[in-house]
Amino acid sequence: MSEFLSQKYSSLKEYVPGEQPQDKKYIKLNTNESPYPPSDKVLEAVTSNEVKDLRLYCDPDCNKLKSAFADLYGVKKENVFLSNGSDDILNFAFMAYGDKGATFADITYGFYSVFAELHGINMEIIPLKDDFSLDIESFKGKKKLVVIANPNAPTGIAIGLDVVEEIVKSNPKSVVLIDEAYVDFGGESCYKLTEKYSNLLCVGTFSKSRSLAGGRLGFAIANKALIADLEKIKYSTNPYNINRLTQVAGLATVLDNDYYLENCKRIIETREFVKKELERLGFVVLPSKANFIFAKSDKISGKKLYEELKNKGVLIRHFETERIKEFNRITIGSKEEMEVFLEKVKEILGEL
Amino acid sequence: MSEFLSQKYSSLKEYVPGEQPQDKKYIKLNTNESPYPPSDKVLEAVTSNEVKDLRLYCDPDCNKLKSAFADLYGVKKENVFLSNGSDDILNFAFMAYGDKGATFADITYGFYSVFAELHGINMEIIPLKDDFSLDIESFKGKKKLVVIANPNAPTGIAIGLDVVEEIVKSNPKSVVLIDEAYVDFGGESCYKLTEKYSNLLCVGTFSKSRSLAGGRLGFAIANKALIADLEKIKYSTNPYNINRLTQVAGLATVLDNDYYLENCKRIIETREFVKKELERLGFVVLPSKANFIFAKSDKISGKKLYEELKNKGVLIRHFETERIKEFNRITIGSKEEMEVFLEKVKEILGEL
Repeated sequence: MSEFLSQKYSSLKEYVPGEQPQDKKYIKLNTNESPYPPSDKVLEAVTSNEVKDLRLYCDPDCNKLKSAFADLYGVKKENVFLSNGSDDILNFAFMAYGDKGATFADITYGFYSVFAELHGINMEIIPLKDDFSLDIESFKGKKKLVVIANPNAPTGIAIGLDVVEEIVKSNPKSVVLIDEAYVDFGGESCYKLTEKYSNLLCVGTFSKSRSLAGGRLGFAIANKALIADLEKIKYSTNPYNINRLTQVAGLATVLDNDYYLENCKRIIETREFVKKELERLGFVVLPSKANFIFAKSDKISGKKLYEELKNKGVLIRHFETERIKEFNRITIGSKEEMEVFLEKVKEILGEL
Repeated sequence: MSEFLSQKYSSLKEYVPGEQPQDKKYIKLNTNESPYPPSDKVLEAVTSNEVKDLRLYCDPDCNKLKSAFADLYGVKKENVFLSNGSDDILNFAFMAYGDKGATFADITYGFYSVFAELHGINMEIIPLKDDFSLDIESFKGKKKLVVIANPNAPTGIAIGLDVVEEIVKSNPKSVVLIDEAYVDFGGESCYKLTEKYSNLLCVGTFSKSRSLAGGRLGFAIANKALIADLEKIKYSTNPYNINRLTQVAGLATVLDNDYYLENCKRIIETREFVKKELERLGFVVLPSKANFIFAKSDKISGKKLYEELKNKGVLIRHFETERIKEFNRITIGSKEEMEVFLEKVKEILGEL
């Protein structure tokens, strides 16, 4: 940190992403990526001519991609915002709507508190219940930005659309942001409710179910006035924030939706298989609607399991947060990867 | 704008980028892109395997690209910051160092005032002199963030390294940001001075001389403490902000530097040719060290020339700002494109 940095950031603790080893020697079950590659249509779309065109700026309005995306969801273009990953959108939303404070769960996506701190926003942290489910009543009648990950991370637990609607209805004077990064693995998206509620901001990403984590593409669906707010902030920070090749890859992704739905189905099946196997080994596994599970065992500490698996070439995600330190978050990879994972877990438990 | 948007943004006027028509029917001399495609090495680097790997997050630290870049400039990795275009870096710098205000010229990159407004930063606007050169003395002894585009845009006028050093020296208590987006077309980069001055932030981009406008890659070179500040803000907003394919394309770009130096030479030659031709037609052309020229004619208003050229299929950039409204900014394209441009200008003047 330099002597010049504004005082307001002096105590800021940045977000720490999961490990991203670049040498590929691990089975990587730590950052919730898809085990399946982008569709062949994406591979075909990124042509040499597109690479040649990198000399030209991208379309800051992302017109083609936005139109195709709106068609897929059956909404209007004016109801869609696209950005350089959904973190970008979360950041913009905290800027735009956090002036009266923000509220979110104690155990949820770790970036929310970083955004709040970054923008000097008062945080109201609402603990999850003992079973790690959302304390729904406590999110009602707020006069501040409400942020809920649904399904939640790292627990994987989802709330129903009826619950989302109750919360949105009870907060007519503030924005309710539903972060649906993991919704395609069994959750219910609230995007259709945005037609009815002008304060609902539904945020999604191409990083998980759409195999584009490295492309960086996030989206929001909302009332056109909310979308206009986000566009204003985008055009006041980084108008060309979605690069050309990502726009091309994103378009091909949207046009081959069935491929991704099929992948989601396979991931859900694998998740249920892994859950059962871990339970047979004595693990507690929270009920997940995401492409990961959150699990702990009485036989081994969360940290030790993480470390032992890393030694054996399998990366999972461990959090040091007190309340969840006995758990680990395990991304659902391919069936084959998960079989290796289970094998290693058995080895580790056998060696105790 | 929604009823929920924070009051502080209610009067914010976003940046308006140059037109980006997506149908390619224009000769595009309006947003300072390179007329030359990325090097063949870039085309070779963006393979199907890289596209397949889009399922995986990118390296948030950009290790490979950062190392190669540091080698090219003969600096250490800790002195390099990379981001999703240089606008991102400018935004971060206004956040990080603008708490005591910011000062910049009246005629310069239009985004500076947007960043200042966005972050609630007091602006001190220092008019360029009558000849559009920088009022150097007025930038000395400030106790706030100093921002200078060198060469300046849209004038193209550069200041020397000695002048940069004087300004940096005279502002020991605040950061001096030199925005070198256009430095490779005849300007002098200050990056080596960053070894000597801990308050100097040298910012550059791959969008102009490196033919990657659509890839979005910006860089900063500075003392490691300033770089750490920028990393802190990046990791508190969007850690994965440079996507995989841009990291790959950027690396290939850095490794084929000679190709780009050659392109810069050609662009400089073409610029001098166009300048002479326009002067022969009676235009006033400011002395440019950039990949554009800024020119006006007594025979036709700036706006009319812009409009007539657009009618004839040539896009240039016109600004409505009072002081420069008789000028137009004309990107230097290929020799062939500029010959068409000159032809059209002659036609328009002939039709008056």
